[in-house]
Amino acid sequence: MKIGIIGLGLIGGSLALEWRSQGHQVLGVSRSDITCQKAIERGIVDDASVRLTLLAAADIVFICTPMAAIAATVKQLIPHLKPETIITDVGSVKTPIVEACSQLWPNFLGGHPMAGTQYQGIDAVEKGLFEGRPYVLTPTETTSPAVTKQTEALVRSLNPQVYICRPETHDQAVAWISHLPVMVSAGLIEACLQEKNPDVLKLAKALASSGFRDTSRVGGGNPELGTMMAQYNRNQLLKTLSQYRQTLDQLIEVIQQEDWQKLQQHLEQTHNARKDFM
Amino acid sequence: MKIGIIGLGLIGGSLALEWRSQGHQVLGVSRSDITCQKAIERGIVDDASVRLTLLAAADIVFICTPMAAIAATVKQLIPHLKPETIITDVGSVKTPIVEACSQLWPNFLGGHPMAGTQYQGIDAVEKGLFEGRPYVLTPTETTSPAVTKQTEALVRSLNPQVYICRPETHDQAVAWISHLPVMVSAGLIEACLQEKNPDVLKLAKALASSGFRDTSRVGGGNPELGTMMAQYNRNQLLKTLSQYRQTLDQLIEVIQQEDWQKLQQHLEQTHNARKDFM
Repeated sequence: MKIGIIGLGLIGGSLALEWRSQGHQVLGVSRSDITCQKAIERGIVDDASVRLTLLAAADIVFICTPMAAIAATVKQLIPHLKPETIITDVGSVKTPIVEACSQLWPNFLGGHPMAGTQYQGIDAVEKGLFEGRPYVLTPTETTSPAVTKQTEALVRSLNPQVYICRPETHDQAVAWISHLPVMVSAGLIEACLQEKNPDVLKLAKALASSGFRDTSRVGGGNPELGTMMAQYNRNQLLKTLSQYRQTLDQLIEVIQQEDWQKLQQHLEQTHNARKDFM
Repeated sequence: MKIGIIGLGLIGGSLALEWRSQGHQVLGVSRSDITCQKAIERGIVDDASVRLTLLAAADIVFICTPMAAIAATVKQLIPHLKPETIITDVGSVKTPIVEACSQLWPNFLGGHPMAGTQYQGIDAVEKGLFEGRPYVLTPTETTSPAVTKQTEALVRSLNPQVYICRPETHDQAVAWISHLPVMVSAGLIEACLQEKNPDVLKLAKALASSGFRDTSRVGGGNPELGTMMAQYNRNQLLKTLSQYRQTLDQLIEVIQQEDWQKLQQHLEQTHNARKDFM
Protein backbone atom coordinates (compact mmCIF):
# COMPACT_ATOMS: atom_id res chain seq x y z
CA MET A 1 0.00 0.00 0.00
CA LYS A 2 1.18 3.54 -0.70
CA ILE A 3 0.77 5.50 2.54
CA GLY A 4 1.13 9.28 2.79
CA ILE A 5 1.88 10.95 6.11
CA ILE A 6 1.60 14.72 6.48
CA GLY A 7 3.36 15.96 9.62
CA LEU A 8 6.35 13.90 10.70
CA GLY A 9 6.20 14.50 14.45
CA LEU A 10 5.86 11.93 17.22
CA ILE A 11 2.58 10.48 15.91
CA GLY A 12 3.10 10.88 12.15
CA GLY A 13 6.71 9.74 12.30
CA SER A 14 5.91 6.72 14.49
CA LEU A 15 3.07 5.66 12.15
CA ALA A 16 5.43 5.97 9.18
CA LEU A 17 8.19 3.95 10.85
CA GLU A 18 5.79 1.16 11.76
CA TRP A 19 4.24 0.79 8.32
CA ARG A 20 7.50 1.11 6.45
CA SER A 21 8.91 -1.71 8.54
CA GLN A 22 5.89 -3.78 7.46
CA GLY A 23 6.83 -3.29 3.81
CA HIS A 24 4.41 -0.53 2.84
CA GLN A 25 5.70 2.34 0.73
CA VAL A 26 5.57 5.38 3.02
CA LEU A 27 5.77 8.96 1.74
CA GLY A 28 6.19 11.79 4.21
CA VAL A 29 5.44 15.50 3.95
CA SER A 30 6.73 18.06 6.41
CA ARG A 31 6.98 21.85 6.35
CA SER A 32 10.61 21.50 7.36
CA ASP A 33 13.42 20.44 5.01
CA ILE A 34 15.47 19.25 7.95
CA THR A 35 12.66 16.99 9.16
CA CYS A 36 12.28 15.51 5.66
CA GLN A 37 16.01 14.82 5.57
CA LYS A 38 16.00 13.20 9.02
CA ALA A 39 12.96 11.07 8.09
CA ILE A 40 14.75 9.69 5.01
CA GLU A 41 18.11 9.22 6.73
CA ARG A 42 16.56 7.34 9.65
CA GLY A 43 14.51 5.07 7.41
CA ILE A 44 11.24 6.42 8.77
CA VAL A 45 9.92 7.01 5.23
CA ASP A 46 10.81 5.89 1.73
CA ASP A 47 10.70 9.46 0.49
CA ALA A 48 9.87 12.84 1.97
CA SER A 49 9.22 16.32 0.66
CA VAL A 50 7.94 19.73 1.71
CA ARG A 51 5.54 19.51 -1.29
CA LEU A 52 2.18 17.77 -1.26
CA THR A 53 2.64 16.61 -4.88
CA LEU A 54 4.69 13.75 -3.44
CA LEU A 55 1.41 12.17 -2.33
CA ALA A 56 -0.22 12.02 -5.81
CA ALA A 57 -0.05 8.22 -5.91
CA ALA A 58 -1.01 7.60 -2.25
CA ASP A 59 -3.81 5.14 -1.46
CA ILE A 60 -4.35 6.64 1.98
CA VAL A 61 -3.10 9.85 3.60
CA PHE A 62 -2.79 10.40 7.37
CA ILE A 63 -2.92 14.06 8.38
CA CYS A 64 -0.79 14.33 11.48
CA THR A 65 -0.55 18.11 11.78
CA PRO A 66 -1.80 20.13 14.78
CA MET A 67 -5.60 20.22 14.87
CA ALA A 68 -5.90 23.81 13.67
CA ALA A 69 -4.18 22.90 10.38
CA ILE A 70 -6.09 19.73 9.49
CA ALA A 71 -8.98 21.12 7.40
CA ALA A 72 -6.70 23.59 5.59
CA THR A 73 -4.27 20.78 4.81
CA VAL A 74 -7.07 18.65 3.34
CA LYS A 75 -8.06 21.57 1.13
CA GLN A 76 -4.50 22.01 -0.17
CA LEU A 77 -4.05 18.28 -0.62
CA ILE A 78 -7.17 17.57 -2.69
CA PRO A 79 -5.93 18.84 -6.09
CA HIS A 80 -3.05 16.34 -5.94
CA LEU A 81 -5.00 13.15 -5.11
CA LYS A 82 -6.62 10.27 -6.99
CA PRO A 83 -10.39 10.35 -6.27
CA GLU A 84 -10.35 6.98 -4.47
CA THR A 85 -7.64 8.01 -1.97
CA ILE A 86 -8.68 7.84 1.67
CA ILE A 87 -7.85 10.78 3.91
CA THR A 88 -7.80 10.31 7.66
CA ASP A 89 -6.41 12.36 10.54
CA VAL A 90 -5.11 11.92 14.09
CA GLY A 91 -6.69 14.95 15.81
CA SER A 92 -7.82 14.54 19.41
CA VAL A 93 -11.29 16.07 18.88
CA LYS A 94 -13.38 14.61 16.09
CA THR A 95 -16.76 16.32 15.50
CA PRO A 96 -15.59 19.66 14.04
CA ILE A 97 -12.82 18.03 12.01
CA VAL A 98 -15.04 15.30 10.60
CA GLU A 99 -17.74 17.85 9.73
CA ALA A 100 -15.31 20.13 7.90
CA CYS A 101 -13.25 17.46 6.14
CA SER A 102 -16.11 15.17 5.06
CA GLN A 103 -17.54 18.07 3.11
CA LEU A 104 -14.20 18.60 1.39
CA TRP A 105 -13.49 14.93 0.61
CA PRO A 106 -16.09 12.13 0.64
CA ASN A 107 -13.46 9.51 1.45
CA PHE A 108 -12.54 11.18 4.74
CA LEU A 109 -12.57 9.17 7.97
CA GLY A 110 -11.75 10.69 11.37
CA GLY A 111 -9.25 8.90 13.59
CA HIS A 112 -7.57 9.35 16.95
CA PRO A 113 -4.62 7.23 18.02
CA MET A 114 -4.37 7.87 21.77
CA ALA A 115 -0.68 7.34 22.17
CA GLY A 116 1.79 9.91 23.26
CA THR A 117 4.87 10.47 25.30
CA GLN A 118 6.13 13.63 26.92
CA TYR A 119 8.30 14.24 23.87
CA GLN A 120 7.46 15.80 20.53
CA GLY A 121 8.81 15.96 17.02
CA ILE A 122 10.63 13.56 14.75
CA ASP A 123 13.38 12.95 17.32
CA ALA A 124 10.75 11.41 19.60
CA VAL A 125 9.58 8.83 17.02
CA GLU A 126 9.14 5.46 18.68
CA LYS A 127 8.67 1.88 17.52
CA GLY A 128 5.64 0.14 19.06
CA LEU A 129 4.10 3.46 20.18
CA PHE A 130 0.56 2.35 19.33
CA GLU A 131 0.72 -1.20 20.63
CA GLY A 132 -2.08 -1.89 23.10
CA ARG A 133 -3.11 1.80 23.09
CA PRO A 134 -6.56 2.97 21.94
CA TYR A 135 -7.04 3.95 18.28
CA VAL A 136 -10.52 5.40 17.71
CA LEU A 137 -12.09 5.59 14.24
CA THR A 138 -15.19 7.76 13.82
CA PRO A 139 -17.23 7.01 10.68
CA THR A 140 -20.55 8.82 10.16
CA GLU A 141 -23.66 7.71 8.27
CA THR A 142 -22.14 9.16 5.06
CA THR A 143 -18.81 7.32 5.37
CA SER A 144 -18.46 4.48 2.86
CA PRO A 145 -18.08 1.16 4.73
CA ALA A 146 -15.20 0.28 2.39
CA VAL A 147 -13.27 3.34 3.57
CA THR A 148 -13.72 2.34 7.21
CA LYS A 149 -12.83 -1.27 6.46
CA GLN A 150 -9.59 -0.45 4.63
CA THR A 151 -8.48 2.09 7.21
CA GLU A 152 -9.32 -0.24 10.07
CA ALA A 153 -7.31 -3.08 8.51
CA LEU A 154 -4.24 -0.85 8.20
CA VAL A 155 -4.66 0.55 11.71
CA ARG A 156 -5.05 -2.93 13.21
CA SER A 157 -1.59 -3.82 11.95
CA LEU A 158 -0.24 -1.48 14.67
CA ASN A 159 -1.79 -3.80 17.31
CA PRO A 160 -3.78 -1.07 19.05
CA GLN A 161 -7.13 -1.38 20.82
CA VAL A 162 -9.46 -0.28 18.01
CA TYR A 163 -12.72 1.48 18.87
CA ILE A 164 -15.26 2.51 16.25
CA CYS A 165 -17.89 5.06 17.21
CA ARG A 166 -19.59 8.28 16.15
CA PRO A 167 -17.47 11.47 16.36
CA GLU A 168 -19.80 12.85 19.05
CA THR A 169 -19.45 9.73 21.22
CA HIS A 170 -15.67 10.01 21.00
CA ASP A 171 -15.73 13.70 21.88
CA GLN A 172 -18.01 13.23 24.88
CA ALA A 173 -15.87 10.35 26.16
CA VAL A 174 -12.59 12.28 25.85
CA ALA A 175 -14.24 15.33 27.44
CA TRP A 176 -14.80 13.17 30.55
CA ILE A 177 -11.45 11.47 30.77
CA SER A 178 -9.11 13.96 29.19
CA HIS A 179 -10.43 17.52 28.88
CA LEU A 180 -12.46 17.79 32.11
CA PRO A 181 -9.50 16.55 34.18
CA VAL A 182 -7.37 19.39 32.78
CA MET A 183 -9.85 22.01 34.00
CA VAL A 184 -10.49 20.28 37.34
CA SER A 185 -6.77 20.06 37.93
CA ALA A 186 -5.96 23.59 36.73
CA GLY A 187 -8.71 24.88 39.03
CA LEU A 188 -6.97 23.21 41.97
CA ILE A 189 -3.67 25.00 41.33
CA GLU A 190 -5.36 28.33 40.67
CA ALA A 191 -7.55 28.10 43.79
CA CYS A 192 -4.48 27.48 45.97
CA LEU A 193 -2.87 30.63 44.61
CA GLN A 194 -5.84 32.65 45.94
CA GLU A 195 -4.83 31.88 49.55
CA LYS A 196 -4.49 35.28 51.22
CA ASN A 197 -2.21 34.30 54.12
CA PRO A 198 1.36 34.17 52.78
CA ASP A 199 2.50 31.86 55.62
CA VAL A 200 -0.16 29.33 54.68
CA LEU A 201 0.67 29.49 50.96
CA LYS A 202 4.38 29.11 51.66
CA LEU A 203 3.77 26.11 53.93
CA ALA A 204 1.31 24.58 51.44
CA LYS A 205 3.97 24.76 48.71
CA ALA A 206 6.52 23.17 51.04
CA LEU A 207 4.22 20.36 52.19
CA ALA A 208 2.73 19.44 48.81
CA SER A 209 3.59 15.85 47.98
CA SER A 210 2.40 12.98 45.79
CA GLY A 211 -1.34 13.64 46.27
CA PHE A 212 -1.10 17.23 45.13
CA ARG A 213 1.48 16.35 42.50
CA ASP A 214 -0.78 13.80 40.82
CA THR A 215 -4.01 15.79 41.10
CA SER A 216 -2.37 18.93 39.69
CA ARG A 217 -0.33 17.29 36.92
CA VAL A 218 -2.59 17.74 33.90
CA GLY A 219 -3.69 21.21 35.09
CA GLY A 220 -0.06 22.27 35.00
CA GLY A 221 0.46 20.82 31.53
CA ASN A 222 0.84 22.45 28.12
CA PRO A 223 -1.33 25.63 28.07
CA GLU A 224 -1.69 25.74 24.27
CA LEU A 225 -2.84 22.13 24.16
CA GLY A 226 -5.33 22.64 27.00
CA THR A 227 -6.76 25.72 25.30
CA MET A 228 -7.03 23.99 21.94
CA MET A 229 -8.90 21.03 23.47
CA ALA A 230 -11.37 23.39 25.12
CA GLN A 231 -11.79 25.33 21.89
CA TYR A 232 -12.44 22.30 19.68
CA ASN A 233 -14.48 20.35 22.22
CA ARG A 234 -16.20 23.31 23.89
CA ASN A 235 -19.78 22.01 24.00
CA GLN A 236 -18.95 18.56 25.34
CA LEU A 237 -16.47 20.02 27.83
CA LEU A 238 -19.08 22.49 29.11
CA LYS A 239 -21.53 19.62 29.63
CA THR A 240 -19.02 17.72 31.75
CA LEU A 241 -18.05 20.88 33.66
CA SER A 242 -21.68 21.55 34.45
CA GLN A 243 -22.14 18.02 35.80
CA TYR A 244 -18.87 18.27 37.73
CA ARG A 245 -19.99 21.49 39.39
CA GLN A 246 -23.25 19.84 40.49
CA THR A 247 -21.38 16.87 41.92
CA LEU A 248 -18.97 19.17 43.75
CA ASP A 249 -21.88 21.14 45.21
CA GLN A 250 -23.32 17.90 46.58
CA LEU A 251 -20.03 17.02 48.23
CA ILE A 252 -19.79 20.52 49.73
CA GLU A 253 -23.33 20.21 51.08
CA VAL A 254 -22.61 16.85 52.69
CA ILE A 255 -19.52 18.32 54.41
CA GLN A 256 -21.45 21.42 55.51
CA GLN A 257 -24.14 19.18 57.01
CA GLU A 258 -21.47 17.05 58.71
CA ASP A 259 -23.11 13.96 57.29
CA TRP A 260 -19.97 11.84 57.59
CA GLN A 261 -21.72 8.59 56.83
CA LYS A 262 -22.95 9.99 53.55
CA LEU A 263 -19.52 11.43 52.69
CA GLN A 264 -18.00 8.03 53.28
CA GLN A 265 -20.61 6.49 50.95
CA HIS A 266 -19.58 8.97 48.24
CA LEU A 267 -15.91 8.13 48.74
CA GLU A 268 -16.62 4.40 48.76
CA GLN A 269 -18.43 4.82 45.46
CA THR A 270 -15.50 6.66 43.89
CA HIS A 271 -13.03 4.20 45.40
CA ASN A 272 -14.89 1.28 43.81
CA ALA A 273 -15.69 3.01 40.51
CA ARG A 274 -12.14 4.13 39.77
CA LYS A 275 -11.04 0.56 39.03
CA ASP A 276 -13.33 0.54 35.97
CA PHE A 277 -11.32 3.41 34.47
CA MET A 278 -7.95 1.69 34.90
CA MET B 1 16.23 9.34 76.35
CA LYS B 2 13.30 7.11 77.25
CA ILE B 3 10.84 7.32 74.36
CA GLY B 4 7.31 5.90 74.51
CA ILE B 5 5.41 5.07 71.33
CA ILE B 6 1.71 4.27 71.45
CA GLY B 7 0.52 2.60 68.26
CA LEU B 8 3.12 0.48 66.47
CA GLY B 9 1.91 0.88 62.89
CA LEU B 10 3.83 2.28 59.93
CA ILE B 11 4.51 5.66 61.56
CA GLY B 12 4.87 4.62 65.21
CA GLY B 13 6.93 1.55 64.37
CA SER B 14 9.21 3.45 61.99
CA LEU B 15 9.81 6.19 64.60
CA ALA B 16 10.63 3.50 67.18
CA LEU B 17 13.03 1.67 64.89
CA GLU B 18 14.88 4.88 64.03
CA TRP B 19 15.37 6.06 67.59
CA ARG B 20 16.23 2.65 68.98
CA SER B 21 18.98 2.36 66.37
CA GLN B 22 20.28 5.73 67.63
CA GLY B 23 20.64 4.27 71.17
CA HIS B 24 17.50 5.64 72.80
CA GLN B 25 15.46 3.34 75.01
CA VAL B 26 12.18 2.82 73.14
CA LEU B 27 9.05 1.45 74.82
CA GLY B 28 6.08 0.49 72.64
CA VAL B 29 2.42 0.11 73.45
CA SER B 30 -0.06 -1.58 71.11
CA ARG B 31 -3.57 -2.92 71.58
CA SER B 32 -2.41 -6.16 70.00
CA ASP B 33 -0.28 -8.78 71.76
CA ILE B 34 0.97 -10.06 68.41
CA THR B 35 2.15 -6.58 67.39
CA CYS B 36 3.98 -6.21 70.72
CA GLN B 37 5.69 -9.53 70.17
CA LYS B 38 6.69 -8.66 66.57
CA ALA B 39 8.02 -5.26 67.71
CA ILE B 40 10.29 -6.90 70.28
CA GLU B 41 11.41 -9.76 68.02
CA ARG B 42 12.30 -7.42 65.18
CA GLY B 43 14.24 -5.06 67.43
CA ILE B 44 11.85 -2.19 66.74
CA VAL B 45 11.48 -1.51 70.49
CA ASP B 46 13.34 -2.44 73.68
CA ASP B 47 10.12 -3.51 75.32
CA ALA B 48 6.43 -3.54 74.40
CA SER B 49 3.17 -4.08 76.18
CA VAL B 50 -0.57 -3.74 75.75
CA ARG B 51 -0.59 -1.75 79.03
CA LEU B 52 0.17 1.96 79.33
CA THR B 53 1.96 1.43 82.69
CA LEU B 54 5.01 0.49 80.61
CA LEU B 55 5.46 4.19 79.84
CA ALA B 56 5.69 5.38 83.48
CA ALA B 57 9.34 6.33 83.10
CA ALA B 58 9.11 7.84 79.58
CA ASP B 59 10.56 11.32 78.94
CA ILE B 60 8.44 11.77 75.82
CA VAL B 61 5.49 9.82 74.43
CA PHE B 62 4.46 9.81 70.76
CA ILE B 63 0.80 8.98 70.22
CA CYS B 64 0.63 7.23 66.86
CA THR B 65 -2.94 5.92 66.98
CA PRO B 66 -5.65 6.84 64.47
CA MET B 67 -6.81 10.45 64.99
CA ALA B 68 -10.11 9.55 66.62
CA ALA B 69 -8.25 7.80 69.47
CA ILE B 70 -5.63 10.46 70.27
CA ALA B 71 -7.42 12.54 72.93
CA ALA B 72 -8.86 9.45 74.64
CA THR B 73 -5.39 7.88 74.71
CA VAL B 74 -3.90 11.00 76.33
CA LYS B 75 -6.60 10.84 79.00
CA GLN B 76 -5.84 7.19 79.78
CA LEU B 77 -2.11 7.79 79.71
CA ILE B 78 -1.96 10.73 82.14
CA PRO B 79 -2.31 8.79 85.43
CA HIS B 80 0.83 6.81 84.55
CA LEU B 81 3.20 9.67 83.66
CA LYS B 82 5.78 11.83 85.40
CA PRO B 83 4.57 15.47 85.29
CA GLU B 84 7.48 16.61 83.12
CA THR B 85 6.86 14.03 80.37
CA ILE B 86 6.17 15.50 76.95
CA ILE B 87 3.25 14.10 74.97
CA THR B 88 3.13 14.62 71.21
CA ASP B 89 1.11 13.04 68.42
CA VAL B 90 1.34 12.34 64.69
CA GLY B 91 -2.25 13.14 63.61
CA SER B 92 -2.74 14.72 60.21
CA VAL B 93 -5.04 17.52 61.43
CA LYS B 94 -3.79 19.63 64.33
CA THR B 95 -6.24 22.25 65.63
CA PRO B 96 -8.88 19.99 67.28
CA ILE B 97 -6.24 17.62 68.64
CA VAL B 98 -4.03 20.37 70.06
CA GLU B 99 -7.06 22.09 71.61
CA ALA B 100 -8.28 18.91 73.30
CA CYS B 101 -4.91 17.53 74.40
CA SER B 102 -3.34 20.79 75.65
CA GLN B 103 -6.20 21.09 78.12
CA LEU B 104 -5.51 17.56 79.34
CA TRP B 105 -1.72 17.86 79.56
CA PRO B 106 0.22 21.15 79.62
CA ASN B 107 3.32 19.50 78.08
CA PHE B 108 1.48 18.53 74.94
CA LEU B 109 2.86 19.50 71.53
CA GLY B 110 1.12 18.67 68.25
CA GLY B 111 3.16 17.06 65.49
CA HIS B 112 2.65 15.74 61.97
CA PRO B 113 5.31 13.69 60.21
CA MET B 114 4.19 13.70 56.57
CA ALA B 115 5.63 10.39 55.56
CA GLY B 116 3.70 7.42 54.39
CA THR B 117 3.70 4.58 51.97
CA GLN B 118 0.78 2.65 50.55
CA TYR B 119 1.28 0.04 53.28
CA GLN B 120 0.09 0.00 56.88
CA GLY B 121 0.85 -1.74 60.14
CA ILE B 122 3.99 -3.01 61.81
CA ASP B 123 4.91 -5.15 58.79
CA ALA B 124 5.29 -1.94 56.78
CA VAL B 125 7.83 -0.38 59.19
CA GLU B 126 10.64 1.22 57.23
CA LYS B 127 14.10 2.58 58.05
CA GLY B 128 14.66 6.14 56.80
CA LEU B 129 10.93 6.77 56.31
CA PHE B 130 11.14 10.36 57.57
CA GLU B 131 14.35 11.38 55.87
CA GLY B 132 13.85 14.52 53.81
CA ARG B 133 10.08 14.42 54.38
CA PRO B 134 8.21 17.23 56.18
CA TYR B 135 7.72 16.98 59.94
CA VAL B 136 5.49 19.78 61.23
CA LEU B 137 5.41 20.82 64.91
CA THR B 138 2.57 23.07 66.03
CA PRO B 139 3.20 24.88 69.34
CA THR B 140 0.66 27.45 70.57
CA GLU B 141 1.14 30.51 72.78
CA THR B 142 0.70 28.29 75.85
CA THR B 143 3.31 25.69 74.82
CA SER B 144 6.49 25.90 76.88
CA PRO B 145 9.46 26.73 74.61
CA ALA B 146 11.45 23.98 76.37
CA VAL B 147 8.89 21.38 75.26
CA THR B 148 9.14 22.52 71.66
CA LYS B 149 12.95 22.65 71.84
CA GLN B 150 13.33 19.11 73.21
CA THR B 151 10.81 17.61 70.81
CA GLU B 152 12.35 19.44 67.87
CA ALA B 153 15.84 18.17 68.76
CA LEU B 154 14.61 14.58 68.85
CA VAL B 155 12.61 14.95 65.64
CA ARG B 156 15.58 16.53 63.82
CA SER B 157 17.57 13.34 64.41
CA LEU B 158 15.26 11.71 61.81
CA ASN B 159 16.65 14.15 59.21
CA PRO B 160 13.25 15.43 58.10
CA GLN B 161 12.36 18.92 56.86
CA VAL B 162 11.12 20.49 60.11
CA TYR B 163 8.42 23.16 59.96
CA ILE B 164 7.16 24.97 63.06
CA CYS B 165 3.86 26.82 62.82
CA ARG B 166 0.51 27.36 64.51
CA PRO B 167 -1.98 24.45 64.34
CA GLU B 168 -4.36 26.56 62.23
CA THR B 169 -1.63 27.39 59.68
CA HIS B 170 -0.82 23.70 59.34
CA ASP B 171 -4.47 22.77 58.91
CA GLN B 172 -5.13 25.42 56.27
CA ALA B 173 -2.02 24.37 54.35
CA VAL B 174 -2.90 20.66 54.37
CA ALA B 175 -6.48 21.50 53.43
CA TRP B 176 -5.07 23.03 50.23
CA ILE B 177 -2.57 20.39 49.28
CA SER B 178 -4.04 17.24 50.76
CA HIS B 179 -7.75 17.40 51.68
CA LEU B 180 -9.06 19.63 48.85
CA PRO B 181 -7.38 17.43 46.21
CA VAL B 182 -9.27 14.40 47.60
CA MET B 183 -12.64 16.12 47.09
CA VAL B 184 -11.70 17.62 43.70
CA SER B 185 -10.55 14.22 42.53
CA ALA B 186 -13.49 12.27 43.99
CA GLY B 187 -15.83 14.77 42.30
CA LEU B 188 -14.22 13.95 38.96
CA ILE B 189 -14.91 10.22 39.28
CA GLU B 190 -18.42 10.77 40.57
CA ALA B 191 -19.30 13.26 37.83
CA CYS B 192 -18.20 10.79 35.13
CA LEU B 193 -20.54 8.18 36.59
CA GLN B 194 -23.46 10.56 35.97
CA GLU B 195 -23.01 10.26 32.18
CA LYS B 196 -26.42 9.13 30.89
CA ASN B 197 -25.29 7.60 27.56
CA PRO B 198 -23.99 4.08 28.30
CA ASP B 199 -21.92 4.01 25.07
CA VAL B 200 -20.11 7.18 26.13
CA LEU B 201 -19.46 5.91 29.66
CA LYS B 202 -18.18 2.58 28.36
CA LEU B 203 -15.86 4.31 25.88
CA ALA B 204 -14.69 6.79 28.54
CA LYS B 205 -13.70 3.91 30.82
CA ALA B 206 -11.87 2.22 27.95
CA LEU B 207 -10.01 5.36 26.85
CA ALA B 208 -9.03 6.65 30.32
CA SER B 209 -5.26 6.79 30.59
CA SER B 210 -2.53 8.51 32.60
CA GLY B 211 -4.24 11.92 32.77
CA PHE B 212 -7.41 10.52 34.25
CA ARG B 213 -5.47 8.02 36.36
CA ASP B 214 -3.41 10.73 38.05
CA THR B 215 -6.23 13.23 38.50
CA SER B 216 -8.54 10.58 40.00
CA ARG B 217 -5.99 8.81 42.21
CA VAL B 218 -6.57 10.47 45.58
CA GLY B 219 -10.33 10.64 45.00
CA GLY B 220 -10.33 6.86 44.63
CA GLY B 221 -8.27 6.38 47.79
CA ASN B 222 -9.18 5.16 51.27
CA PRO B 223 -12.80 6.29 52.00
CA GLU B 224 -12.42 6.16 55.81
CA LEU B 225 -9.29 8.32 55.67
CA GLY B 226 -10.89 10.86 53.34
CA THR B 227 -13.96 11.11 55.57
CA MET B 228 -11.86 11.48 58.72
CA MET B 229 -9.81 14.31 57.16
CA ALA B 230 -12.99 16.15 56.19
CA GLN B 231 -14.45 15.60 59.65
CA TYR B 232 -11.41 16.88 61.56
CA ASN B 233 -10.52 19.66 59.15
CA ARG B 234 -14.04 20.60 58.13
CA ASN B 235 -13.82 24.39 58.42
CA GLN B 236 -10.54 24.77 56.60
CA LEU B 237 -11.61 22.28 53.94
CA LEU B 238 -14.88 24.18 53.37
CA LYS B 239 -12.90 27.42 52.90
CA THR B 240 -10.75 25.83 50.22
CA LEU B 241 -13.78 24.21 48.54
CA SER B 242 -15.54 27.54 48.41
CA GLN B 243 -12.52 29.17 46.74
CA TYR B 244 -12.15 26.21 44.39
CA ARG B 245 -15.76 26.51 43.31
CA GLN B 246 -15.28 30.22 42.54
CA THR B 247 -12.18 29.48 40.49
CA LEU B 248 -13.98 26.72 38.60
CA ASP B 249 -16.87 29.08 37.84
CA GLN B 250 -14.41 31.56 36.36
CA LEU B 251 -12.92 28.87 34.12
CA ILE B 252 -16.40 27.79 33.01
CA GLU B 253 -17.29 31.39 32.20
CA VAL B 254 -14.16 31.90 30.12
CA ILE B 255 -14.96 28.74 28.13
CA GLN B 256 -18.61 29.78 27.70
CA GLN B 257 -17.45 33.16 26.40
CA GLU B 258 -14.97 31.46 24.08
CA ASP B 259 -12.26 33.77 25.37
CA TRP B 260 -9.44 31.45 24.35
CA GLN B 261 -6.73 33.99 24.99
CA LYS B 262 -7.89 34.35 28.56
CA LEU B 263 -8.18 30.59 29.04
CA GLN B 264 -4.61 30.22 27.82
CA GLN B 265 -3.52 32.86 30.34
CA HIS B 266 -5.16 30.84 33.13
CA LEU B 267 -3.44 27.66 31.97
CA GLU B 268 -0.10 29.45 31.64
CA GLN B 269 -0.48 30.66 35.20
CA THR B 270 -1.18 27.16 36.50
CA HIS B 271 1.61 25.71 34.34
CA ASN B 272 4.09 28.15 35.86
CA ALA B 273 2.76 28.01 39.42
CA ARG B 274 2.79 24.22 39.72
CA LYS B 275 6.60 24.16 39.86
CA ASP B 276 6.47 25.97 43.23
CA PHE B 277 4.53 23.05 44.71
CA MET B 278 7.02 20.41 43.56
